[in-house]
Amino acid sequence: MVKISQRALDLPASPIRKLIPYANQAKARGIKIYHLNIGQPDIASPELFLQKIKQFPDKVVAYEQSDGNAKLRKSASIYYKRNNIDLEAEEIIITQGGSEALWMACFILLESEQECLTIEPFYANYLSFANLANVKITAVTSTIENNFQLPSITKIKAAVTSKTKAILLCSPSNPTGVVYSKKDLQKLVDFCLQKNIFIISDETYREFFYEKLMPTSLITFKKAHQNTVIVDSFSKRFSLCGARLGIIASKNKDIMAAVLKMAQARLAAPAIEQYAASFLDKVPQSYFAKVQKEYKKRRDTLVTGLQKIPGVVCGYPAGAFYLIAQLPVDDSEKFARFLLEDFAFKGETVMVAPAQGFYSTPNLGKKQVRIAYVLNCEDLKKACLLLGKALEEYNKK
Amino acid sequence: MVKISQRALDLPASPIRKLIPYANQAKARGIKIYHLNIGQPDIASPELFLQKIKQFPDKVVAYEQSDGNAKLRKSASIYYKRNNIDLEAEEIIITQGGSEALWMACFILLESEQECLTIEPFYANYLSFANLANVKITAVTSTIENNFQLPSITKIKAAVTSKTKAILLCSPSNPTGVVYSKKDLQKLVDFCLQKNIFIISDETYREFFYEKLMPTSLITFKKAHQNTVIVDSFSKRFSLCGARLGIIASKNKDIMAAVLKMAQARLAAPAIEQYAASFLDKVPQSYFAKVQKEYKKRRDTLVTGLQKIPGVVCGYPAGAFYLIAQLPVDDSEKFARFLLEDFAFKGETVMVAPAQGFYSTPNLGKKQVRIAYVLNCEDLKKACLLLGKALEEYNKK
Repeated sequence: MVKISQRALDLPASPIRKLIPYANQAKARGIKIYHLNIGQPDIASPELFLQKIKQFPDKVVAYEQSDGNAKLRKSASIYYKRNNIDLEAEEIIITQGGSEALWMACFILLESEQECLTIEPFYANYLSFANLANVKITAVTSTIENNFQLPSITKIKAAVTSKTKAILLCSPSNPTGVVYSKKDLQKLVDFCLQKNIFIISDETYREFFYEKLMPTSLITFKKAHQNTVIVDSFSKRFSLCGARLGIIASKNKDIMAAVLKMAQARLAAPAIEQYAASFLDKVPQSYFAKVQKEYKKRRDTLVTGLQKIPGVVCGYPAGAFYLIAQLPVDDSEKFARFLLEDFAFKGETVMVAPAQGFYSTPNLGKKQVRIAYVLNCEDLKKACLLLGKALEEYNKK
Repeated sequence: MVKISQRALDLPASPIRKLIPYANQAKARGIKIYHLNIGQPDIASPELFLQKIKQFPDKVVAYEQSDGNAKLRKSASIYYKRNNIDLEAEEIIITQGGSEALWMACFILLESEQECLTIEPFYANYLSFANLANVKITAVTSTIENNFQLPSITKIKAAVTSKTKAILLCSPSNPTGVVYSKKDLQKLVDFCLQKNIFIISDETYREFFYEKLMPTSLITFKKAHQNTVIVDSFSKRFSLCGARLGIIASKNKDIMAAVLKMAQARLAAPAIEQYAASFLDKVPQSYFAKVQKEYKKRRDTLVTGLQKIPGVVCGYPAGAFYLIAQLPVDDSEKFARFLLEDFAFKGETVMVAPAQGFYSTPNLGKKQVRIAYVLNCEDLKKACLLLGKALEEYNKK
């Protein structure tokens, strides 16, 4: 019998999603699950978006422009300029989520089998996009002891090989919540310019920061404009994960010409969502302020709850809505399955993402989990209690 | 300065879309363009879909399941069974248009640098998806003299090399409109089974046929189930090109497991469109009958109009809504630009797709264009008159 390709067999299964069957079985047994495993915010999408969806004016749902709805690209530029990020509409192409933007960036910047260096732990799907573009992800490790700050240039330099063609950054970071300082980023940018390396900057979580340190867009570094690609997403900013709208942006015209060719191959991003999203520059700053306040409260609730559990180590992440926690367990993947298969307290349990899938170095993150604080404070408190009880029970076995 | 990848530079520009700048310039000069260049039907999307879009019930536009909205997968299975195509919901995964399904199929079935054999002229974007999956498209030529029928097994056999791992078919065909007979397909299926070759069957135009010959789904050939992948789309069937909803389906569990991994990497297809599309099994057969009748009338109008123009050769396509016409010109790409840049009659012109981009063999299709009959009969008549006048003027130069 004819066999599928080895490269398809080798694709990593999503470490976040591979526990789903166990979760479904638990639900079938009547167990309530607190989902800390996935970055699906519970915040309502902007009323304006939902209203505009209902007002989609066309009788024929026709192909949108391959590079995106023209009004949406202008609206995105307005949003960027308001955030002191100098990007014109023609430097922006609308993608099918940040996901597609990441895959495009890998394909366009790197040849087959070249290396894209990133900082681990990193968003697990970076591995998937790299695989799909036949690019190798290599990583410099950031540590929980150092609050996952950007590793030193010395360490980054040591990880760069003759095959390294791009560095992929995410700040505020999924999964660690770290926000890199402008000073640290400046050093890295200088290094990349010196070494002729592209920078892919995943800026999905721009609005999600809880300390004085504001996230820095890589577009800020003018000298590096020809080296820089911005990946962005509507998913988290506007709680529109399901709309599948993202952005790839660059001032490098060769890059944008190649993006357009890739965009034309798949014809267009979804038309109805793009229409509604083209009004989002009208969402007032107060929407973000409210969301930010809520997430800060959640972060504080979560960290307080976690730090009360004996043996659990975690810091206060400055941004995004994730943190990496170290647990007193042998293997967090086993523990995550235990939570779904063998544990329940008053009919409730918790789902977390084992952190190993966020590292490319083997055996790292084995005691860690990623927790998304996308639930309200009451639920987060309950989830921490459940985690504490589960750890006790797990370690008794 | 650091350079983008050679593979990105080598990506083909869409032959259908690369004339767009000239079209935009013509429009800026006040010229009205009859668009015969792109398969964007003018038929209204089903009222039910537009109504359900307005009824999207959620306050948070959350990620859909990676394999698709569960109700939509069931609804698709109902639709297939009604068409005597035996596909269960779990054998169906929802994709971001047929485009994504084609790319997934190439990636999953073939290794890097293997060959996917198809019949030329073929849908130009097959080249793009193959490029993005690092697969080589090879082709057996079907000819206008033979009404673009499936080439003989002898010819197909001659084109198969040790690297050929899949054959990609499209019936009813974009761009030729040919519908392959069950008998011819049976021969090809037997050949593929004997040679251990996968079959990718692009069945996007199933409802669009105008003669007695009904399109045959490749799922009909039970012996070949493990070799077969169906690619499908909501775009043309329901005039929902902008919704970006497609299907990849197979009875081969290894293939579907790999599809799921690729689907998880990009998280999900758009949620709002999937919600609305999940009701489409309720669209009555009369919708398709009406559409079919309209397209048949258009086909007849177009062919009659074209055959009146001296030197133009084309047959009556049995399906889809395209045809390949041979024109009395030296180079159809030059002529297509001429139509937009140098020609107008009473302030109007026509846009066509030069056919060279639909061939992989160099220099084929140089005198041909693809015409999509997605306009009403009155407009098609006008378009034919304009084409006739333009050919006269072009050949006078």
